[in-house]
Amino acid sequence: MNGRELPIIQFEDRPGILDLGWGHPCPSLLPVAEWQKATQATMEQFGWQVLTYGYATGPGPLIEWLSGHVSKAENAVIDPSQFFITAGASHALELISAVLAEPQDVVLVDSPTYHFALRILRDHGLEIVKAPTDDDGIDPAALDELLASLLSRGRRVPMLYIVPTFGNPTGRSLPSHRRCELVQMARRTGLTVVEDDTYRELVYQGTVPTSLWRLADGEGVVRIGSFSKTVAPGLRLGWINAAPGIVRRLASLGYVDSGGGINHATALTMATFGTSGTYGQHVAHVRGEYRLRRDTLVGALRNSLPDLHVPSPAGGWFVWLPLPPGMTASVLLRKAESLGVSFVPGTLFYADAQGGYNHVRLSFSLLTPPQLIMAAERLTEAIQAVS
Amino acid sequence: MNGRELPIIQFEDRPGILDLGWGHPCPSLLPVAEWQKATQATMEQFGWQVLTYGYATGPGPLIEWLSGHVSKAENAVIDPSQFFITAGASHALELISAVLAEPQDVVLVDSPTYHFALRILRDHGLEIVKAPTDDDGIDPAALDELLASLLSRGRRVPMLYIVPTFGNPTGRSLPSHRRCELVQMARRTGLTVVEDDTYRELVYQGTVPTSLWRLADGEGVVRIGSFSKTVAPGLRLGWINAAPGIVRRLASLGYVDSGGGINHATALTMATFGTSGTYGQHVAHVRGEYRLRRDTLVGALRNSLPDLHVPSPAGGWFVWLPLPPGMTASVLLRKAESLGVSFVPGTLFYADAQGGYNHVRLSFSLLTPPQLIMAAERLTEAIQAVS
Repeated sequence: MNGRELPIIQFEDRPGILDLGWGHPCPSLLPVAEWQKATQATMEQFGWQVLTYGYATGPGPLIEWLSGHVSKAENAVIDPSQFFITAGASHALELISAVLAEPQDVVLVDSPTYHFALRILRDHGLEIVKAPTDDDGIDPAALDELLASLLSRGRRVPMLYIVPTFGNPTGRSLPSHRRCELVQMARRTGLTVVEDDTYRELVYQGTVPTSLWRLADGEGVVRIGSFSKTVAPGLRLGWINAAPGIVRRLASLGYVDSGGGINHATALTMATFGTSGTYGQHVAHVRGEYRLRRDTLVGALRNSLPDLHVPSPAGGWFVWLPLPPGMTASVLLRKAESLGVSFVPGTLFYADAQGGYNHVRLSFSLLTPPQLIMAAERLTEAIQAVS
Repeated sequence: MNGRELPIIQFEDRPGILDLGWGHPCPSLLPVAEWQKATQATMEQFGWQVLTYGYATGPGPLIEWLSGHVSKAENAVIDPSQFFITAGASHALELISAVLAEPQDVVLVDSPTYHFALRILRDHGLEIVKAPTDDDGIDPAALDELLASLLSRGRRVPMLYIVPTFGNPTGRSLPSHRRCELVQMARRTGLTVVEDDTYRELVYQGTVPTSLWRLADGEGVVRIGSFSKTVAPGLRLGWINAAPGIVRRLASLGYVDSGGGINHATALTMATFGTSGTYGQHVAHVRGEYRLRRDTLVGALRNSLPDLHVPSPAGGWFVWLPLPPGMTASVLLRKAESLGVSFVPGTLFYADAQGGYNHVRLSFSLLTPPQLIMAAERLTEAIQAVS
């Protein structure tokens, strides 16, 4: 390794660049002291049970707290038998793909959508097909036709992947009439909607849209939750809501049965973090901080680029910025990096790379407000320079 | 859930039964206080870096300590680029299967072998074929012929799975001449040997056999290591040694790239546990304790069943007990459970369930020495009753 130190974390600091590309949390918002306290309390309360093989679907105390927390937030009753603890949202999608789909199956996706989800689905040998969309997002009626056409050609289409609430990369949410239509269509056709609900708790204005899971009353929807954005991604902890039959299939995967519950010690610690009230306080705190960061970035860009439509997402971590007519993200990126700012070009979020040429995804999660103001200045300069 | 508390851990206590079936650690040997101390020190040293997305192959401090530790133990140089951190040994096998094999491929396995590994391989749609064995274990010359025959019939045979050192369930190790032949054969044919090396550190007498990985100098072997038996299974932490090209393929799996390093926070804590010297002290301690448990169980059975050949494994957690001629494990199990003792019947460890009828696997890891003595008494009574 030529004497160089090996990296500790995924984030690569590029000196001189303010990078709006990373969907990572702001370091100062990670609950270091609180997590340490939860670890100690968990060790004191549960002792050796923290360190031995965990229960397959997740440790009881976490599932009990989580089902209570989510049920209360959604004014619903979600039974503990509908929960399965995972090593984060991406691991949840990995597991769901393994259980619901087979290689060569078709999986339908929103456009644009979370780019790493596309990678995970491809790793399972699935063929990715874009669901029809319009300005409101996925169009359930057109989707119904596409599905019928695929099925009539003998294709298996087990699932649709969507981030319907404060989506990555757009920050937008599927409107409620579309949610109802999608859930009804899924129930009618047997298609499973995989709802990636990672950003639900990070709502900055109004009320968070009702989940597809809640609308469907758990039928035909598998919902993915995560502690990565609310608490800390380094913990690798998330969950799945699914029908008890699917939860049982997840629990009987060979490597779950062999190793016991996924990420058991961390999961049990999260139970303490939740029941102690720390989770609620922490999420309220970061919600305010991320709202401030959103307002800072959006405000700065609206001031300096009055001709551009700069959307202000109602939740989540991302601004999906449309570029001036005729400007492409790839051309802008070169100029932007030369001026000390970066982002993710929109094309990455399209399964076929056909789309997003004139959009960029800006994450306001990682940088501090002063950094966001400076990043907005540099981005403005870059846009003006290539206009 | 009818008011019942949800389980926390995988182990199910059956009142009145001393269960030699569980390959679980003795609760009193789990390092609760030491792990808590390591967590605190890690939080103090690395702060927010513990909680954010980790580096894909594992955090540098763990890989640096681990490569030093394993290199020293094996008198070899294993480069950090040959390590990939996983969520335990079974997760390692899951990942290796995803990267090396495709559904319908043939995977060769030892007989008997770790029963959950068979489940993991089947989950990937692999066809499991027993490698030819004799009293010394896998017979590389006969294996070579079988492989040639499979390949000539157009089958893809990417890998062989084996626990060659203090194996599960036999406690036996592949003799050194067989190790050399196997490694040479693999190199010649392109077969990848997946060496599950979970029990290497738990050696009770003599020296531990040289690993296939070391003999092959990293060519044609992928080695799996684990912290489950040495430290704690609830942490879900293990590793893979593989050629840097395979490590890169693991790191570029969609869900690794999405979530960052597997089990990052726990992995960074293990680095502290290792570099502080706690790992070395703890392993020395549990090695002595498990040796005592082995000697207790083996000694008690040899005393009470002088006509039986009770093997004393040189390492690991298991006694592979041959039953008296004509006695089957399934018949014995019913009697044993009625007398308050249990075990795993040998048939579970054969891919085709054709074998092991007159063997049982006894784990001496979970119970205390007084419990092991009582378990041996009950097992003796059961064997005498059905003889």
